[in-house]
Amino acid sequence: MRFTGIFAALTTPFAPDGSLALDKLRENIAAYNRTRLSGYVVAGSTGESVLLAFREIVRIWETARESAAPGKLLIAGAGVETTAETILRARKAAELDYDAVLIKTPHYFKPVLTPAALERHYLSVADASPLPVLIYSIPQYTGVSLAAELVAHLAEHPNIVGIKESSGNVQLVAEIVHLCPPEFSTLVGSASTLFPALMLPVAGGVLALACFLPQAAVEIYEAARAGDTARASRLQFAIFTASRKIAGDLGPVGVKYAMDCVGYYGGDPRLPLLPLTDAQKKTVESVLAESIARQRVESLGVAR
Amino acid sequence: MRFTGIFAALTTPFAPDGSLALDKLRENIAAYNRTRLSGYVVAGSTGESVLLAFREIVRIWETARESAAPGKLLIAGAGVETTAETILRARKAAELDYDAVLIKTPHYFKPVLTPAALERHYLSVADASPLPVLIYSIPQYTGVSLAAELVAHLAEHPNIVGIKESSGNVQLVAEIVHLCPPEFSTLVGSASTLFPALMLPVAGGVLALACFLPQAAVEIYEAARAGDTARASRLQFAIFTASRKIAGDLGPVGVKYAMDCVGYYGGDPRLPLLPLTDAQKKTVESVLAESIARQRVESLGVAR
Amino acid sequence: MRFTGIFAALTTPFAPDGSLALDKLRENIAAYNRTRLSGYVVAGSTGESVLLAFREIVRIWETARESAAPGKLLIAGAGVETTAETILRARKAAELDYDAVLIKTPHYFKPVLTPAALERHYLSVADASPLPVLIYSIPQYTGVSLAAELVAHLAEHPNIVGIKESSGNVQLVAEIVHLCPPEFSTLVGSASTLFPALMLPVAGGVLALACFLPQAAVEIYEAARAGDTARASRLQFAIFTASRKIAGDLGPVGVKYAMDCVGYYGGDPRLPLLPLTDAQKKTVESVLAESIARQRVESLGVAR
Amino acid sequence: MRFTGIFAALTTPFAPDGSLALDKLRENIAAYNRTRLSGYVVAGSTGESVLLAFREIVRIWETARESAAPGKLLIAGAGVETTAETILRARKAAELDYDAVLIKTPHYFKPVLTPAALERHYLSVADASPLPVLIYSIPQYTGVSLAAELVAHLAEHPNIVGIKESSGNVQLVAEIVHLCPPEFSTLVGSASTLFPALMLPVAGGVLALACFLPQAAVEIYEAARAGDTARASRLQFAIFTASRKIAGDLGPVGVKYAMDCVGYYGGDPRLPLLPLTDAQKKTVESVLAESIARQRVESLGVAR
Repeated sequence: MRFTGIFAALTTPFAPDGSLALDKLRENIAAYNRTRLSGYVVAGSTGESVLLAFREIVRIWETARESAAPGKLLIAGAGVETTAETILRARKAAELDYDAVLIKTPHYFKPVLTPAALERHYLSVADASPLPVLIYSIPQYTGVSLAAELVAHLAEHPNIVGIKESSGNVQLVAEIVHLCPPEFSTLVGSASTLFPALMLPVAGGVLALACFLPQAAVEIYEAARAGDTARASRLQFAIFTASRKIAGDLGPVGVKYAMDCVGYYGGDPRLPLLPLTDAQKKTVESVLAESIARQRVESLGVAR
Repeated sequence: MRFTGIFAALTTPFAPDGSLALDKLRENIAAYNRTRLSGYVVAGSTGESVLLAFREIVRIWETARESAAPGKLLIAGAGVETTAETILRARKAAELDYDAVLIKTPHYFKPVLTPAALERHYLSVADASPLPVLIYSIPQYTGVSLAAELVAHLAEHPNIVGIKESSGNVQLVAEIVHLCPPEFSTLVGSASTLFPALMLPVAGGVLALACFLPQAAVEIYEAARAGDTARASRLQFAIFTASRKIAGDLGPVGVKYAMDCVGYYGGDPRLPLLPLTDAQKKTVESVLAESIARQRVESLGVAR
Repeated sequence: MRFTGIFAALTTPFAPDGSLALDKLRENIAAYNRTRLSGYVVAGSTGESVLLAFREIVRIWETARESAAPGKLLIAGAGVETTAETILRARKAAELDYDAVLIKTPHYFKPVLTPAALERHYLSVADASPLPVLIYSIPQYTGVSLAAELVAHLAEHPNIVGIKESSGNVQLVAEIVHLCPPEFSTLVGSASTLFPALMLPVAGGVLALACFLPQAAVEIYEAARAGDTARASRLQFAIFTASRKIAGDLGPVGVKYAMDCVGYYGGDPRLPLLPLTDAQKKTVESVLAESIARQRVESLGVAR
Repeated sequence: MRFTGIFAALTTPFAPDGSLALDKLRENIAAYNRTRLSGYVVAGSTGESVLLAFREIVRIWETARESAAPGKLLIAGAGVETTAETILRARKAAELDYDAVLIKTPHYFKPVLTPAALERHYLSVADASPLPVLIYSIPQYTGVSLAAELVAHLAEHPNIVGIKESSGNVQLVAEIVHLCPPEFSTLVGSASTLFPALMLPVAGGVLALACFLPQAAVEIYEAARAGDTARASRLQFAIFTASRKIAGDLGPVGVKYAMDCVGYYGGDPRLPLLPLTDAQKKTVESVLAESIARQRVESLGVAR
């Protein structure tokens, strides 16, 4: 199982005029390179990929490729509605020497995107993609769910190597872990259930929260892996509200503001996403402060 | 109120190799030109717009522009997730001399696409679009609903002239009609509630069913407008199951097969949409046959 | 078809100490007797039946029986979760000389209340009930929906004579009307879609709104039946907001306060239902005033 | 914190004629008394309480009281729709010397059962109940959810001592644990997330699965408490499918048949619940056999 540990779901920095701020992306990655993150998802949901032209995505992928330290795995957010276009994007990611592609469920035509249609999509992409495929399920954005049985069936394809499961439904994640082979990488997409999911166990997480609290996320993972469940549980509590109120409730916009608060470059989102209101900013600030204070207590306790 | 009557939500014909079959589109429109349809929506949901590159959409728009008979109104499906890109598409539609743009709700980031974000999106587009804007709400595909109050507020903008409301929720449509000014065109997007909606009254419908039963849809509209509610009701019954089982349950794929059955060019959809199974084809055939038989009875009854 | 026209879904008056105020019920019914309402549903959802002991319900049924004018049909809300207990209640209603029983879907064990289980329930009740059975579907309270196909199947039973369909889903109501025999009484349970539903046509409505605006509801019905759709539509508009904001949003508590406003006895609900807040009362008052003003305009217009 | 460990959510045995089979209940409890279950919930959802008359519930409570071994805690399912009737039932449970009452959310009038109404209900019951109150949230049956913030607020009442949270939503359970004081007993109501929930940590579980696999449930709890998370995780896997396919998908009816399979008395449910079909019985049998085989492997592994 190659995809383990904590991956940051990178944001896409924009300049005030709305164009890509690739220098800021470079700086953010340089900072993340100094953590024990396993790697990065580039141009996924948190990267506002649905608001980007493909030519922009390619430039973002290139920048991340150049900036990532050796050993950091790079996963390209390459899934779009059309099967054929998804394959073209996967091929481009392969040219840029990425390690895997993350392929979200097509979702617009929900009533006819049956399990058979989703299966056909994933198998077509997996057959054609030069890179290993990670399935991506995020029903809170797509309105499409993947049942554990379908995931297990797809996991039989040699080029489908894992899933980012972002529903927050631990029971479903347990079922996926239960049904899939041990070398299949189940990664959760929500930090608020990271610790209980690691107990199932899952391979790790792809987390928006890791954009602003990378160290906290990594420490939960490491404590759980080391068998120190008490510490993992306390660390989980320290980030719980931040995960729910910032990444969950406010999405990429909240994540970006939290990044600004702790020294990374967040910046504004693209319309139709609105910048945070002042009240929302205050919420982010106070939740973040509380989270950091709790982590410090825990770390000091460990140091003693 | 300019947008009244029945509009066909055109499908996009593909050749067996998956490329655009623009000659087939031309032939379909030529046939529709001989009906009393008010016009066409080009590259909307039924046109599989989310599976098309923008360069393809432009060619489709051009072809429809060339093929549409004088007097047929042309509405361009121009809404995408990004506000700025939506505006670019609206400008292109204006260059091609369309009559309006149909702008669906952005929807990927559901939890943060608040009424304020949707309002900002529509007002930005309406400010910048050279063409009048029709709002487009289709929660069964997008997972995003527009409350009547928000629609009424948007209706105050001089460049927002109507809505295609596809939820099938007659109570919501009634509320929109109730709250919006009389010159605002409320069009329903589902044929299965066309007649009761016309009683509210709404201005008309933008219907996938009109791709394969254009005459039937037009006759319901005309009977209701003429005050012959008994005939409108019987005609509505004749198409009810076809609307629900073909356009509703099977989406663009079902519509295309029904078109093939009655002499238009339907053809296959693009992946990830799958062609109908044999069982689904049989359903379409029998539902369609029953619907046509009922219309014939009704028309003969009138003839006598 | 025996059950046609507008039925009031009666509230249950309580004294300030929470006991039944049967004298107030008597007075309300005496007033309704002077309208052209077709009859009354006694101890249904609006009657807070789930908050009443069966011995209380029997006293309410008796009181309504004594108070109803000759010719007014009486329908007993007799459905509970258990099939056997539902049958006992139907028998008691028959002893009290009611005209029908209204049997809501059992609903607690949603995941196993399959169509087969619901079918068995209704057929068992219909076999054993001395009174004709009206099905009652109100998914906004029960979380259980009845598909049109199942309703049509149940309609084949000689003792199942109609349905009160309260979902507000006009498309579903159309489908039921479409599939059921003409002698089957489809009654809608929400005043906000009364007029479009009458166009399908349905047999009438069982309306909470008829507790405080009985005349308005009757006039919509009569105008629609007389073919005066323009007047029916205007009258529908006059009560639309009252239906949605009072009966829909505030349930029995809102209905009771609206009754107090217009001279019936409403009074307080039983806990856990809370009396209206002052802000909610103001909403009821203003919505009601606007509704009454619109009806007056319409009636004067007719008089001239 | 008094309510810890695993509680069985007892079923209610019926004789073939539908009457209570209290002798069978006695025998089941006698068998459970020999396990390390912490106690029993009597006449809760799994006990089909909504299908029982109160006089029957009292006889069931009495029988359980007489049959339970010393040291087994007894929790009475006492919540109904009406606040006043809920209080009467709590008083009766106190007379019968129960240890707590389990009070489910009222739910019929969903749209008006606001947090304020639910708060008033729980505080009224807690004020009047001679026994400590356990909140009970089971949205898959009731359609009503309790937010963590409201639970935390209710937990401040000295007579509200815990919650049975049956949504299966581990993230919500984590939030409740996070916000409530350490002496508040959070018990999960679904075995399929027992192990990850125990890691949060929760106090234990009230499980329908404990009716047919009591030992397995207890061993998960004990392994988790002893810090043997690897064993707890393997045991969790052994019961996962049984929990989901029997208790989850088939409810009390599935639980009863599984009890019949392993030597307890299950028997048939009351209508409108239908007995299992033959196909459903086969599913229960095979899921159960697999679950038992896995537990045996795990236990032997431990024995070696």
